Amino acid sequence: LAAILAFGQEAEQSPLPTFPSLLAAVEEGRAEFAVLPIENSLTGSIHENYDLLLAHDLTIVGQITVPIVHHLLALPGTELADLRRVSSHPQALSQCRRFLAAHSQWEVVPVYDTAGAAKLLRSSRIKEDGAIGSSQAAQDYGLAILASGIQDRADNQTRFLILGRKPLSKFGGSSRRRTSFVFSLAHLPGSLFRALAAFALREIDLLKIESRPIPERPWQYRFYLDVRGGMDEERLHSALVHLGEVAQDLRCLGSYPEEQASSLGGTHLCWR
Amino acid sequence: LAAILAFGQEAEQSPLPTFPSLLAAVEEGRAEFAVLPIENSLTGSIHENYDLLLAHDLTIVGQITVPIVHHLLALPGTELADLRRVSSHPQALSQCRRFLAAHSQWEVVPVYDTAGAAKLLRSSRIKEDGAIGSSQAAQDYGLAILASGIQDRADNQTRFLILGRKPLSKFGGSSRRRTSFVFSLAHLPGSLFRALAAFALREIDLLKIESRPIPERPWQYRFYLDVRGGMDEERLHSALVHLGEVAQDLRCLGSYPEEQASSLGGTHLCWR
Repeated sequence: LAAILAFGQEAEQSPLPTFPSLLAAVEEGRAEFAVLPIENSLTGSIHENYDLLLAHDLTIVGQITVPIVHHLLALPGTELADLRRVSSHPQALSQCRRFLAAHSQWEVVPVYDTAGAAKLLRSSRIKEDGAIGSSQAAQDYGLAILASGIQDRADNQTRFLILGRKPLSKFGGSSRRRTSFVFSLAHLPGSLFRALAAFALREIDLLKIESRPIPERPWQYRFYLDVRGGMDEERLHSALVHLGEVAQDLRCLGSYPEEQASSLGGTHLCWR
Repeated sequence: LAAILAFGQEAEQSPLPTFPSLLAAVEEGRAEFAVLPIENSLTGSIHENYDLLLAHDLTIVGQITVPIVHHLLALPGTELADLRRVSSHPQALSQCRRFLAAHSQWEVVPVYDTAGAAKLLRSSRIKEDGAIGSSQAAQDYGLAILASGIQDRADNQTRFLILGRKPLSKFGGSSRRRTSFVFSLAHLPGSLFRALAAFALREIDLLKIESRPIPERPWQYRFYLDVRGGMDEERLHSALVHLGEVAQDLRCLGSYPEEQASSLGGTHLCWR
């Protein structure tokens, strides 16, 4: 859905089984762009995907925010009263807590993968089983939607990054930019404060900070920062030079338009 | 294992199926303390458990760091050459990547729960299946250890918090203290910088920062901070008064000894 919103129905899609395989496909030229979920507004960052940004030599060229709508899926012909068990990924289950609490007679079964729950339901053909999933999963596996929009909050959204091999010259028009980078710090009192000074003293808005462990240095962290502004702005460029003086291993991950799905009005972004 | 290291073999243990149920048991007086994993040195924070700290009215009274050792488990009588499939939680699988790569003929199956993989193996009785798990899982489910210490890194550790209903008066001797708290900020340029100033200007060491989404305010964040020092120190007390001027919803989660399992030398901490 994120890929369709960003590139349109006509773009060729190449689904791959894991997140690392998406990034490898772009790196090796088998795909032009990867669409990678990075953060959900309720459940937070997909931290493994932050680690992947560091492990691959790609650039963030855009982002797209997609509303998440969960449905209760079952085999065609099943009625709500037939159900005894409902399965999905724990995140999806927790996002539909109120709906599930209103049907407390159902056994709730956490599984590793949301789409996998729908697929398993299709192959098992058990009339008493339901799965929580997307309308796409219903379509892909020929399942019926017994209840629609069952998530607790209407404003549940997931933000996806669009990754390419090099920055796009044709940016998304006049929209605001966002710039992402990663760095580590010497473990000294005040080091993060000094790093943030590079932005605060220039009144650059910090949009997100994420800390991730440095495996070879237990209990020390790498920081991922998103700030408002594009690398073509002198103020942000100066801030990064300043940050470079206090940080280690500074790397820019991309400077891209802050386009949101909600502002697209049904048309897709012009990435190419 | 963390509970035994912290409280000794003789302490009564009460295993519960989910993390929320651990905290509820302490809140309702059915248990004195909860032992909650919060962070792994390779894979990072257990973010859902940060959210639980906020949802429950408990205090962190201590922490304990436990080395993680993974083993390859199988039914007794199975040999390495018999195996065709190996299952475990994706985190455990990724922590044993090198061992698995050296046995690329095996199908690797991610499952939702590490101990569950061992339990399933016991009940399925399939000789071709292995599971990655702890020595405790081997013991609990009567499985054989085919290969020991198969994790990529020897310094893989998990940090557990010990939660109680009120702060302990008897602290862990002369050890250094750590204080944890949570707050949110107005979404203004420089607000995190001003918050960190409370500590940096007093040369208080920041040990960890973790950001978590605020569900009712999409793309805004709550910050969890760990700093060195105890709440009985005037410097830290002043810093928190200062932070209270710039932060919203500031709450102290606990001030506790920074004891590490590696420094225990086989004896348990004296919590009571």
